[in-house]
Amino acid sequence: MRVQVDCYPCILSQLSELAKKAVGGEEERHALVRRLLKLVLEADRETTPPEFAAMFHSVVTELSGIDDPFRDIKDRSTELGLALLPELRRTAEAHPDPFEAAVRLAIGGNIIDYGVNPNFELHEAEKRIREVFDLPFDRELCAEFRRRLDAAGSIFYMLDNCGEAVIDRLLIERYRDKITVGVRGYPILNDVTRREAALSGIEGVRIVDTGDRAPGVSLRHSGRELLDAMRGADVVVSKGQGNFESLDEGCERPVFFLLRVKCRVVAERVQSPLGSIRLIGRNL
Amino acid sequence: MRVQVDCYPCILSQLSELAKKAVGGEEERHALVRRLLKLVLEADRETTPPEFAAMFHSVVTELSGIDDPFRDIKDRSTELGLALLPELRRTAEAHPDPFEAAVRLAIGGNIIDYGVNPNFELHEAEKRIREVFDLPFDRELCAEFRRRLDAAGSIFYMLDNCGEAVIDRLLIERYRDKITVGVRGYPILNDVTRREAALSGIEGVRIVDTGDRAPGVSLRHSGRELLDAMRGADVVVSKGQGNFESLDEGCERPVFFLLRVKCRVVAERVQSPLGSIRLIGRNL
Repeated sequence: MRVQVDCYPCILSQLSELAKKAVGGEEERHALVRRLLKLVLEADRETTPPEFAAMFHSVVTELSGIDDPFRDIKDRSTELGLALLPELRRTAEAHPDPFEAAVRLAIGGNIIDYGVNPNFELHEAEKRIREVFDLPFDRELCAEFRRRLDAAGSIFYMLDNCGEAVIDRLLIERYRDKITVGVRGYPILNDVTRREAALSGIEGVRIVDTGDRAPGVSLRHSGRELLDAMRGADVVVSKGQGNFESLDEGCERPVFFLLRVKCRVVAERVQSPLGSIRLIGRNL
Repeated sequence: MRVQVDCYPCILSQLSELAKKAVGGEEERHALVRRLLKLVLEADRETTPPEFAAMFHSVVTELSGIDDPFRDIKDRSTELGLALLPELRRTAEAHPDPFEAAVRLAIGGNIIDYGVNPNFELHEAEKRIREVFDLPFDRELCAEFRRRLDAAGSIFYMLDNCGEAVIDRLLIERYRDKITVGVRGYPILNDVTRREAALSGIEGVRIVDTGDRAPGVSLRHSGRELLDAMRGADVVVSKGQGNFESLDEGCERPVFFLLRVKCRVVAERVQSPLGSIRLIGRNL
């Protein structure tokens, strides 16, 4: 998904927040925002929102010397996911359709977001994750999703955020013998890198990283190893908005997007209200 | 008030909305947003948010051929103000302090906003305007405001939005013999120009316009006539956020700002919560 005109205010909002995190004085912040605005103007029309985020964070990292400003938030999210996992696993196993329950919970995990709300609470998280059982959901496509995964010789599963990744284990562990898990190459927002995948207990599977900082899978800037793993897979699983924004065009493999709709641009694109949960299949 | 880093997302949000109003295709909208982004980068550090708005609207007007996209909204707001005025006038006259009541209502009028909510209703407007009687308010400064206006040989009163301007008559008419009323030079957003001042029933007073399109009083771009009227006045009255943003620095006369706090940047600057009503005195 190329950047839309409605993405610009959101991009600017992210970068003014970053500017406040990275530098102290008002004049320095202005200089930083102007430098990032220049990057927006110089970017070509194929640039996706995650690619913009990667460019901005590279500049901020260089200026502030802080490589991973979200590390604490990420670790708290992972701990939260680990605390919730046993009970969520029992819920899935007790469900009439344990596979569907695992898919719903994997999408629900996307709600763990200390970035948006630093006061996010454990009991609140569990409630918000469990609400996915009451939201409309394409059960027929979910059954097709299961058939495809069961039949696949190889699966590529692209992770998104910390905390959420722990709950992804409910799906990942079902296909441990044939799954490759993708993570970000460098710290970006609250996204999972190799470090947080390990902390999340994702073990015994092959892990590849994008070699890139985008909070998505840039088809232009990701490393060969990850692109080969994705393009060689029988089925691709893509978690969250950032991966959707970068893979909804140009991923040539059968792909299932599992996402919670969190912004107006994506809501319009997938024709679903804000807050809804979506399973979307492409190239099937 | 120079533009703050937190203003950029808001400015971008306004201009992507404008781009959607002005041009049809996605590529044309992108081209327009990029052209406006270049203006942001080229602007100097003294540029105020209203000056940005003026630049953007000039470009959009030139491209779309539509000089006043808000005319309908403005006229409906004025009609709404005229419908409410008799009852609000009775309220002010029946109040223990009719002057304070008129000031509160003049600030309350700032809530009439068809731009934000196209389905704004008459009875809702009256309720929202009357709620100013229940909000915290600096009554001591209000008494000083009255003393200053009563003692002044000349008053300059800078209008803001349509509809609101009708309610401003409660104050303007008290000082009819010594007041000069300021309006925008060209149509911008839902702001009052000479046309809407006349439709609002503001008569028998001298009216000057800025000669400029900013939804505020640009101290760099306003015409000599308006700047002379303002700088020659014993007291300046400035309505709303746009005028505050452009006059809170550089207005050398005793000035009273009457505003409803509508954005985070102004809220921080005046140390008041969003939605609050403020009377602020400077150079007293």
